[in-house]
Amino acid sequence: MYYIGIDLGGTNIAVGVVDKDGNIIYKDSTPTNAPRSAEAYAEDMVSMCYKVVEGAKLTMDDIAAIGLGSPGSIDNENGMVVSAGNLGIKNAQFRKLIQQKIDKRVTIENDANAAAYGEYMVNGDGAESFVCITLGTGIGSGIIIDGKLYTGCNHAGGEFGHVTIDMNGIKCNCGQNGCWEQYASATALINQTKEAIEKNPDSMMVKWVEENGKVSGRTAFDCAKKGDKAALNVVENFQKYLAAGLLSVVNIFQPDKITVGGGISAEGEYLLGPVRDMVFCKAFYNGDRKNPVLEVAKLRNDAGIIGAAMCAAI
Amino acid sequence: MYYIGIDLGGTNIAVGVVDKDGNIIYKDSTPTNAPRSAEAYAEDMVSMCYKVVEGAKLTMDDIAAIGLGSPGSIDNENGMVVSAGNLGIKNAQFRKLIQQKIDKRVTIENDANAAAYGEYMVNGDGAESFVCITLGTGIGSGIIIDGKLYTGCNHAGGEFGHVTIDMNGIKCNCGQNGCWEQYASATALINQTKEAIEKNPDSMMVKWVEENGKVSGRTAFDCAKKGDKAALNVVENFQKYLAAGLLSVVNIFQPDKITVGGGISAEGEYLLGPVRDMVFCKAFYNGDRKNPVLEVAKLRNDAGIIGAAMCAAI
Repeated sequence: MYYIGIDLGGTNIAVGVVDKDGNIIYKDSTPTNAPRSAEAYAEDMVSMCYKVVEGAKLTMDDIAAIGLGSPGSIDNENGMVVSAGNLGIKNAQFRKLIQQKIDKRVTIENDANAAAYGEYMVNGDGAESFVCITLGTGIGSGIIIDGKLYTGCNHAGGEFGHVTIDMNGIKCNCGQNGCWEQYASATALINQTKEAIEKNPDSMMVKWVEENGKVSGRTAFDCAKKGDKAALNVVENFQKYLAAGLLSVVNIFQPDKITVGGGISAEGEYLLGPVRDMVFCKAFYNGDRKNPVLEVAKLRNDAGIIGAAMCAAI
Repeated sequence: MYYIGIDLGGTNIAVGVVDKDGNIIYKDSTPTNAPRSAEAYAEDMVSMCYKVVEGAKLTMDDIAAIGLGSPGSIDNENGMVVSAGNLGIKNAQFRKLIQQKIDKRVTIENDANAAAYGEYMVNGDGAESFVCITLGTGIGSGIIIDGKLYTGCNHAGGEFGHVTIDMNGIKCNCGQNGCWEQYASATALINQTKEAIEKNPDSMMVKWVEENGKVSGRTAFDCAKKGDKAALNVVENFQKYLAAGLLSVVNIFQPDKITVGGGISAEGEYLLGPVRDMVFCKAFYNGDRKNPVLEVAKLRNDAGIIGAAMCAAI
């Protein structure tokens, strides 16, 4: 049997047919065009489901269940998205709306949690405890304990992005000061890069931006690798920020495995090598010295589709 | 049936007979006199076991199992304390040493974890997820998920005391800067009180110290309640520090219940009331508004004995 995974994102609705091992058979996407009504999103999701099943050369009879990953607050029990600001929806009855057209079991999960679960299923190596951190606009995270997503009493747990690393630091949208995502998200890296460019008009980064049109998460990394001092400084500070939050992940969870995903993770060991050293030299072990595995996430852009499908396969 | 709980502390070895509901039938203690050999500690623990069983008007036949809570790094599988710096022991084979004299099942758990588990069993209200924070020399903490202690891949998880709340802040013994316990432990409160006394020679706290002999965790609270401004300032800052770490507990775990223990927790709602407001106004909920229960721990000084016994009752 196969599963359909729907990644309802702010920009695209990405849908794929996924086998039981987390391999995408066929995928496609359509623009989200937010904000729209729940009914309009559901209509597009349904037609995309049919499209990818056809693309996979299968029929709906081959599909065991449909998994939806959505931003915002989820109520899987009642099959709805309680609220998702970016999409402009409240109490969106997606299970009912999808089942009116496709008679399958439909599960709904928060997108960051779904992506974490997908990463765990494909890349978890059977870990008893697993934490998946995604560096994007903010910092998304998901926690898996004993093979299950941990989400706490109100399905909003695992918000490592809103763990403070500097209580006197940068104000976050959530109302707190110094949230980790203000320092170690892709957005934060871009802000740090912009500041460094302003202060260092001779940096290679100025030319990089001219050539590439705008500052991105790659700007500082590309220039640092070529020896640019200001860029290197940005990278090293970013690694220090990333390490500060990961150290909390380790000291709280001591998970078997931690993965770091998001666009920046494409830097691989150039990013993570020094971070690993910073984290594990300060981690609290009570005398033990077994380090969690800390590595780059593997699913990349497909994590949302695969994760949503894997949640439907539970 | 009954259980014996042994709380092997840095100052006292406290031992009690505990029923299956976590009630202490009889307890007693003897000085730890650290550092000594594992054999010497075990001899005292064994004779205390006999003493408390007699005190409870029971015989060893009434005892189902013995639970030991010890500081440091634990290897319950092999029945030993791997290392406990304060006690001066390494690879202490306590299970074997106790069983040579008392033929019962013996479980060994880290003392902070045992105390958290005891608190959960007695005061957890059946919570699916429960975090117990103890403000003492450092900050101890224990995490219970789905009714089980969560300790991570190397039995050293749940170290909330070493979660950074200020990455540029006070240096901690663990090597990191700004660990929560540098701000919100009893030790930290005493340091903050001493600083305030130095800066405010007119504060009521000066007289309090003259009358009571030395600065304690109660100094600032007692004087704040009488309207002393400098003391009130200490209390308010301490609450802010406590809230900063508790906010991370909430944003990561969204547990059903959090308890705060340790001597300072005797201040009850005077301490926790404002902290609750500070935490829950900034907690990250994705639109949901169900707050974890945040209250004072109930077991107080007996948490170690009861927790160790409850671990033996699993």
